[in-house]
Amino acid sequence: MDKPQTLKGFRDFLPEKMIIRNEAIRRLRGIFEKYGFDEIQTPSLEYQEVLLGKYGEEAEKLMYLFKDPGQRNVGLRYDLTVPFARVASTYQDLPKPFKRYQIQPVWRAENTQKGRYREFYQCDVDMVGTSSPLADAEIIAVINDSLKALGFSNFKIRVNSRAVLFSIMENAGIDKERWLTAIQSIDKLDKKTQEEVEQELAQKGISTEQTKSIFGNIKSASPDEFLSKTIEYTKNMGAYENVSFDPTLARGLDYYTGPIFESVVEEPKIGSITGGGRYDNLLKTLGGPDLPATGTTIGLDRVVDVVDELKLWSQEKTVTKVLVTVFNPELLLQSIKIASTLRGSGVNAELYPDEAAKLEKQLKYANNKGIPFVVLIGPEEDAKNLVQLKDMASGKSENITLEQLLKKIK
Amino acid sequence: MDKPQTLKGFRDFLPEKMIIRNEAIRRLRGIFEKYGFDEIQTPSLEYQEVLLGKYGEEAEKLMYLFKDPGQRNVGLRYDLTVPFARVASTYQDLPKPFKRYQIQPVWRAENTQKGRYREFYQCDVDMVGTSSPLADAEIIAVINDSLKALGFSNFKIRVNSRAVLFSIMENAGIDKERWLTAIQSIDKLDKKTQEEVEQELAQKGISTEQTKSIFGNIKSASPDEFLSKTIEYTKNMGAYENVSFDPTLARGLDYYTGPIFESVVEEPKIGSITGGGRYDNLLKTLGGPDLPATGTTIGLDRVVDVVDELKLWSQEKTVTKVLVTVFNPELLLQSIKIASTLRGSGVNAELYPDEAAKLEKQLKYANNKGIPFVVLIGPEEDAKNLVQLKDMASGKSENITLEQLLKKIK
Repeated sequence: MDKPQTLKGFRDFLPEKMIIRNEAIRRLRGIFEKYGFDEIQTPSLEYQEVLLGKYGEEAEKLMYLFKDPGQRNVGLRYDLTVPFARVASTYQDLPKPFKRYQIQPVWRAENTQKGRYREFYQCDVDMVGTSSPLADAEIIAVINDSLKALGFSNFKIRVNSRAVLFSIMENAGIDKERWLTAIQSIDKLDKKTQEEVEQELAQKGISTEQTKSIFGNIKSASPDEFLSKTIEYTKNMGAYENVSFDPTLARGLDYYTGPIFESVVEEPKIGSITGGGRYDNLLKTLGGPDLPATGTTIGLDRVVDVVDELKLWSQEKTVTKVLVTVFNPELLLQSIKIASTLRGSGVNAELYPDEAAKLEKQLKYANNKGIPFVVLIGPEEDAKNLVQLKDMASGKSENITLEQLLKKIK
Repeated sequence: MDKPQTLKGFRDFLPEKMIIRNEAIRRLRGIFEKYGFDEIQTPSLEYQEVLLGKYGEEAEKLMYLFKDPGQRNVGLRYDLTVPFARVASTYQDLPKPFKRYQIQPVWRAENTQKGRYREFYQCDVDMVGTSSPLADAEIIAVINDSLKALGFSNFKIRVNSRAVLFSIMENAGIDKERWLTAIQSIDKLDKKTQEEVEQELAQKGISTEQTKSIFGNIKSASPDEFLSKTIEYTKNMGAYENVSFDPTLARGLDYYTGPIFESVVEEPKIGSITGGGRYDNLLKTLGGPDLPATGTTIGLDRVVDVVDELKLWSQEKTVTKVLVTVFNPELLLQSIKIASTLRGSGVNAELYPDEAAKLEKQLKYANNKGIPFVVLIGPEEDAKNLVQLKDMASGKSENITLEQLLKKIK
């Protein structure tokens, strides 16, 4: 192991980054559970027959497929939706509607770029077994509350419905078989110019007149009845503030059948943060039971990239609040006692793990590690039954009693 | 996907099991952080050159090794120690001593049995860069506090030192090259009879006299100086109550150089719950920097199996506290309002996601899912500005105000 390195698109998370990731997960989990979703987890590896034939050819090229030591054909999880469909199929007696969330890594051998990794975490929230717009509205409310809980202020939740897009296709006189491919082109309107999309549609055999009809109608389109109800419910839930109807929103995946939703932040430009919608036929197609479903994915890594880039949260380098130094081996017991007392009171306290280290070295360590407070018990403090508390930010020290220390730190 | 199933040794975790797993992780993380350990995570996949030549031939047969879509030779994480050594090597400027914890799954294609899975979680706590017995004592204190925090009462932390075992080997006149293989046989004393172990030693070329000397000395052995200090420090830390010196404790792995520790519960019989020790040369061997280290692994899956089997914690089926039912579509807004208010007050509240469902169906759902409280707003309650709260355990209902509801539920 001369130059040990990680694989491209795979990352180590050191303490500073883990603190942000854990905090993001804590906040998301809090919202998901407030809405009555329970967590599940599925294995990292599945039989290839569970994974293949579900995502399309292009996706399968990105999958980690291999033989396990027992020569079984297996693959790493590509998303959380197909494993969830398998779960719905394996445990058909789960109470319905079944509301689950799932926060786990998935693996895709994509070309890496900003916000795109080969191992990344998805946070999925889905509701299975209800075809009411109330369910879709709750998913939108979960997205809104989640992004607010993360501290995002400048975000938009764009909503549309496949039904709106389908009726535009129908009005333009486009063959039903071409609806989905046309929608895939329209989905690129946020990245390409209208002219470029028009060219792409022409290449797909859509006539100039039909394209004109699409773009004419898309601008004046209004929500269908189901989406109108969904939007009305988000208003009732107080979750409408960041929602906007956007008839050009298409979402790339084929399996959506009703409302679709996507959220983006204004800054930084990082692609969509969440994506989802109603998929009433997917579970059956995936081998699950024939149940309607709706849900969303929140991309944890993009969330964390946004928090990082906007410096949304005060970023700490360690969870440790206090370093209890060891003055010398003779005074070690006093330091052990203080550390134990702090921990007993719920304070994250580190005891410097070397009774013979110089004090200077210990202080330098606290500074490098970003520990905010240092406690020192020298012979003088010990004689007076006091401790010296040093605030590393201000550099100020004071001699106080143990009770005062506990009060200060907590 | 006719009969979708999980791979042998791989498990789905449904809500009830996830609640226990999350609670166990929450308690362990609390203890690790109280002792000033920070979390890190490493990728699931590493280059094979990082993994191979580290664990021995037998282990390599159990590894998930394969080519990724880019034809790189890769493998799934086999433990958390080797990736940690890679991290210590990749980021050599991390402040030392470096104290990290890591809670992630590892993969081993073992024969499955009780408490042994192919995908399982390890919780590792290690301290790198200090050769003081204070560090070993803190690891033992972490183990003690962790098992207590999990609610375990009947456990033993057995400690010994490789130095004790080495001097017994030396006294018996055994060649130095045979010390480790002899120790591996002695390690089986908890599973095999002394006679069986004696036979195994004979097969390894240890003479009857040497074996006699080993067993004679092992019974009267006492801790060496380093281990004595370690034990003394655990007493100072108030972490000695479950510790016992056991000169027959050997631990199978070759890399330990000083104190070794292992913990077991009396009931159920499930093997060791934690295992660890000092490994001063391993990091360098693994390609990391030449730093002393000590630490332990806690096996999350065995911990959870113990909690499950002893029913240590009250086991809930859902995190949801209240189901807010929908009486009929006309009264939906009232239900939305109550659900929003409960959520705003931090209560996990589910709104039944179908405005047209019969009340009976909704109550049956709450019952199946194990939701403890149900709220009902019918025309009568609505007219009086009250809600009906039903306690699902007692079956009792009462009409109360929204303020009273919040008070009751919280």
